[in-house]
Amino acid sequence: MGADHARRLATRIAGASLTALADPDEGRVGALAEELDGIAVHADPLDLIASDDVDAVVLASPGSVHEEQLLACIERGVHVLCEKPLTMDSESSLRVVEAERAGGRDLVQVGFMRRFDPEYVRLKALLDSGRMGRTLLLHQTHRNKSVPHPDFRSEMIVRDSLVHEIDCARWLLGEEIVSIQVISPTPTSHAREGVVDPQIAILRTASGAVVTNEVFVNARTGYEVRVEAVAERGSAIIGRPASGVYTTTADPGGGDGSWGGPIDPDYRVRFERAYDLEVQAWVDASRRGEVVGPTSRDGYVSTLVCTAGMQSLASGVPVAVETPGS
Amino acid sequence: MGADHARRLATRIAGASLTALADPDEGRVGALAEELDGIAVHADPLDLIASDDVDAVVLASPGSVHEEQLLACIERGVHVLCEKPLTMDSESSLRVVEAERAGGRDLVQVGFMRRFDPEYVRLKALLDSGRMGRTLLLHQTHRNKSVPHPDFRSEMIVRDSLVHEIDCARWLLGEEIVSIQVISPTPTSHAREGVVDPQIAILRTASGAVVTNEVFVNARTGYEVRVEAVAERGSAIIGRPASGVYTTTADPGGGDGSWGGPIDPDYRVRFERAYDLEVQAWVDASRRGEVVGPTSRDGYVSTLVCTAGMQSLASGVPVAVETPGS
Amino acid sequence: MGADHARRLATRIAGASLTALADPDEGRVGALAEELDGIAVHADPLDLIASDDVDAVVLASPGSVHEEQLLACIERGVHVLCEKPLTMDSESSLRVVEAERAGGRDLVQVGFMRRFDPEYVRLKALLDSGRMGRTLLLHQTHRNKSVPHPDFRSEMIVRDSLVHEIDCARWLLGEEIVSIQVISPTPTSHAREGVVDPQIAILRTASGAVVTNEVFVNARTGYEVRVEAVAERGSAIIGRPASGVYTTTADPGGGDGSWGGPIDPDYRVRFERAYDLEVQAWVDASRRGEVVGPTSRDGYVSTLVCTAGMQSLASGVPVAVETPGS
Amino acid sequence: MGADHARRLATRIAGASLTALADPDEGRVGALAEELDGIAVHADPLDLIASDDVDAVVLASPGSVHEEQLLACIERGVHVLCEKPLTMDSESSLRVVEAERAGGRDLVQVGFMRRFDPEYVRLKALLDSGRMGRTLLLHQTHRNKSVPHPDFRSEMIVRDSLVHEIDCARWLLGEEIVSIQVISPTPTSHAREGVVDPQIAILRTASGAVVTNEVFVNARTGYEVRVEAVAERGSAIIGRPASGVYTTTADPGGGDGSWGGPIDPDYRVRFERAYDLEVQAWVDASRRGEVVGPTSRDGYVSTLVCTAGMQSLASGVPVAVETPGS
Repeated sequence: MGADHARRLATRIAGASLTALADPDEGRVGALAEELDGIAVHADPLDLIASDDVDAVVLASPGSVHEEQLLACIERGVHVLCEKPLTMDSESSLRVVEAERAGGRDLVQVGFMRRFDPEYVRLKALLDSGRMGRTLLLHQTHRNKSVPHPDFRSEMIVRDSLVHEIDCARWLLGEEIVSIQVISPTPTSHAREGVVDPQIAILRTASGAVVTNEVFVNARTGYEVRVEAVAERGSAIIGRPASGVYTTTADPGGGDGSWGGPIDPDYRVRFERAYDLEVQAWVDASRRGEVVGPTSRDGYVSTLVCTAGMQSLASGVPVAVETPGS
Repeated sequence: MGADHARRLATRIAGASLTALADPDEGRVGALAEELDGIAVHADPLDLIASDDVDAVVLASPGSVHEEQLLACIERGVHVLCEKPLTMDSESSLRVVEAERAGGRDLVQVGFMRRFDPEYVRLKALLDSGRMGRTLLLHQTHRNKSVPHPDFRSEMIVRDSLVHEIDCARWLLGEEIVSIQVISPTPTSHAREGVVDPQIAILRTASGAVVTNEVFVNARTGYEVRVEAVAERGSAIIGRPASGVYTTTADPGGGDGSWGGPIDPDYRVRFERAYDLEVQAWVDASRRGEVVGPTSRDGYVSTLVCTAGMQSLASGVPVAVETPGS
Repeated sequence: MGADHARRLATRIAGASLTALADPDEGRVGALAEELDGIAVHADPLDLIASDDVDAVVLASPGSVHEEQLLACIERGVHVLCEKPLTMDSESSLRVVEAERAGGRDLVQVGFMRRFDPEYVRLKALLDSGRMGRTLLLHQTHRNKSVPHPDFRSEMIVRDSLVHEIDCARWLLGEEIVSIQVISPTPTSHAREGVVDPQIAILRTASGAVVTNEVFVNARTGYEVRVEAVAERGSAIIGRPASGVYTTTADPGGGDGSWGGPIDPDYRVRFERAYDLEVQAWVDASRRGEVVGPTSRDGYVSTLVCTAGMQSLASGVPVAVETPGS
Repeated sequence: MGADHARRLATRIAGASLTALADPDEGRVGALAEELDGIAVHADPLDLIASDDVDAVVLASPGSVHEEQLLACIERGVHVLCEKPLTMDSESSLRVVEAERAGGRDLVQVGFMRRFDPEYVRLKALLDSGRMGRTLLLHQTHRNKSVPHPDFRSEMIVRDSLVHEIDCARWLLGEEIVSIQVISPTPTSHAREGVVDPQIAILRTASGAVVTNEVFVNARTGYEVRVEAVAERGSAIIGRPASGVYTTTADPGGGDGSWGGPIDPDYRVRFERAYDLEVQAWVDASRRGEVVGPTSRDGYVSTLVCTAGMQSLASGVPVAVETPGS
């Protein structure tokens, strides 16, 4: 992910100069630095954050070190784009929110890149236009081909996958989640022993809208992310699997042919453009001294909802979420 | 509905002769009898059921008189296709099931016409083929344009609309529902005061599959019935709104044009072919002395699940369903 | 084809009794007669046509014997549904038209079943409604998986496949074809040596509308029949390959999954409903003493256009068609 | 177009600095220069081309001045991205090709931006992969909502619209066009008096592949650009009108609802991403001293084919094209 962002900044983004990389893995970062024309390398990310020639930082480090690095960025007053999660629990997330607030300047953008995806942006604009009336329901689908992680646990579906749906629901509906219920179907045989996959999560918002979520991380087919919004006078769907090329194909064995196309293999392909637009918007806003994307508070609140979701995954009953006033 | 079936039998079905109509509304039934070339008319449906020249009966009468009419058919030993609901409550449905069983002959088919719809039949065949592995989830959507009924109540969404989804879930998955939870979003402003619309219903089956249902009877757009089945190695969707004619259309005001097509206005249009196939299959089976479609037991069990659903609509929590052995 | 029609009449059509079959192949027709409950069999079709208990005849015999059989039907005054082609050349077709006219009664319907296909009917209604203005262009696509015929020749693409497109163009546009140009691309390697496949045919109508046709009978994928109508204020497409079931599928080898569905393997599957509706409409009209589908004149004119098309296939240049006044 | 490119270079492209603008219209260029932070302005484009601080030039000037400006760029040895057409006739295009060749350095890229559109790139990759066998046919569709130009003439459809299809056909098939036939349907009533719109153009390539083209510039619906490639074992379509957001919409008058979405209003929306990718690729290649997109020879050959197309538009018969060896 860090390498993706580095290449993106170096080759596809206007108005930014990539000046330094940091990674404890010297071999990996060295090869990348060479590919990118001999850019400076720091072994310690905190050294990079402290450098005079750094105006803004992208954090793609493990979530467990985010708090320390974010606080360093805030202390130095540099803009930072932090891949999700903001931090690993709501207490540390709150400390980041409060440090940023104490500093008096907006500096942190969280990497919920879907808010920059053209389809999501169009859906948001359509819902906000009021042309379809009030939005009553969202149906969100999130499928991954598989999860290679050997220690994968059910909670990681909530924390790493459902978290995107939670942020999207809050953003699309423009209101807070007040409860979450996680329902556990009998798992697919492709999940590791003991892992609940797929999961159904039901969110309720402050105004009473309901959001159903299917998260299925061993779906075998590919990366499918879809939203259907149901409003008073119409509905809208984004994320239909469509590669742009629609084919008819003969069956090599002489059987029935088929029509259709490939499914995106992973989030990199599906959200490539969203990442480019996210980073360009972050660079542009940082140069103006602003934050225009999801904030540290968005990261904090999504962590709060995920925490409640993990409780509901264990109990099966709805768990209330208390969101502090903004 | 009765007139539709009469015209269907008279003009589109092989192997049947329409010999008599019964309806307490003399003017209405008289006009229809004339249209259909002077067919016999009975004021009392029980007289029709008792007629010597009647081998088989279609009941499209109000649900409240179904029990009496069904028992009369069973007593005389004539085949009967009964529009849903079988009867108005599970006790009377059970009496019908037991009367039929006591008679020793299969005579009753319930009008769950979707089981004859070509798309549903193909989906069922695909799931049963095992090509996609075990089915883990169903997502069912059921939208009506509006409900004209002046006394419409929230429970009728469960009893008259959700009942179709319940039967489809049982049939597609080949197993029984063990619990139902009905979730109440804030209603659309197009629903009557006090009516919960849309509703989200969550079913769980004996094997642990989960079925999510959206039922929305004042959706304004049209009649949309859709199923997505999610299995271990793939998914399948039927009921995408598609009229067969895909158009591009200029905006009369000179604005952006649009692509797409019309949505079916109601179930008559959407399921026209399903009704024809249902009635043809019923006629063919009746002549062989068999019942090949949904049975009285299917009608009874769906009523049991609906009864639990109405309890959950009131309480918001999951309600268990006890299905008697077949 | 004859067996399909016999089964259809016996099991899916209201208002008709199948009373007799005729086929020189005794074994084949005997088995079918047995399947259909011991129906009468004639070795000579002319004997069947002459039978007292026959009111209406379906001809699914080879085109080379159509003239004699049609003239016999006309002479006896029985209604006849004749599979295309009406006859093998325009001279004999004209003799049939004139014999029917001399008899003073409309008796012949030609088997252009697409005119009864629900999608075609909706497209025709849309074009006739005038909502999109005048129709300027049709783009027609006609693909078969393969042609098993060992003596297949390029002309047969015009006579047996393009003929359907010619009839559809005349019917959809409501006017006559005045010229035809057949263009010969380099053939697919799946065509027999010397066969021009695919072919592009350009029709021009009396009002100056242009119809482009792709006919490709060794397309390998399946049976794809599609029309796009382009009008002054919009366009409409029918025949998009869509089975009704839309699937996502995992790649067994672990590669990218795909979305889509199967393509109809042949015309029997694609036009099953059209055939049912065609035969039901023919039965209904015959009982009223009318012909409501494509007439002998439609069969004759399509043969005229095909004859010109075969000339253009040889020369590559447009060939004018003279259609006699109706 | 020039302003679009200037804004793109200033805000969305990595590795380029926008240093100067030139436009004889002082007011227009002054406003744009101010928007872009006080960039230098030249009244005479030749002055800009001669500037020391200019390494590469984008020409979005009228086609009539392209020859002079291109020759100036070639003489100074600066890279140039020239919007189509290369020049107004094949003689002047040939002079540019020869001047570039004489200079010994590749410097000119022509603005056929579709070659950078992700859908076109995927289609090209699919055809080149050989997975579907040899490509036999292309069907290309090119519709504009309307042409505002008061002096619009039929030839401009060939020169300004069909030219894109010609370039795409050459590129997708990897071979030259050997003949072109333009067919003139009766025009839409929305075309100016005397303008032939739509037009059907048939191209034949050196290997015998056939390309059908519909160009319709007063289609009223929007900007629709579509290609269907038909190969020996499958077909592929790009450009289906799909905004990414699929909606169902209630009819405000209470009639049938509809499904679908908006059509792109113009090429700016449809090909926005293609333009970004084109300019980024041009900047990257120019910095390496290379040309990676369509060359001056591509511009010259497309002009040759268009010239033949304009002759065929007048005569209606196929016109041969002689393409010089590369």
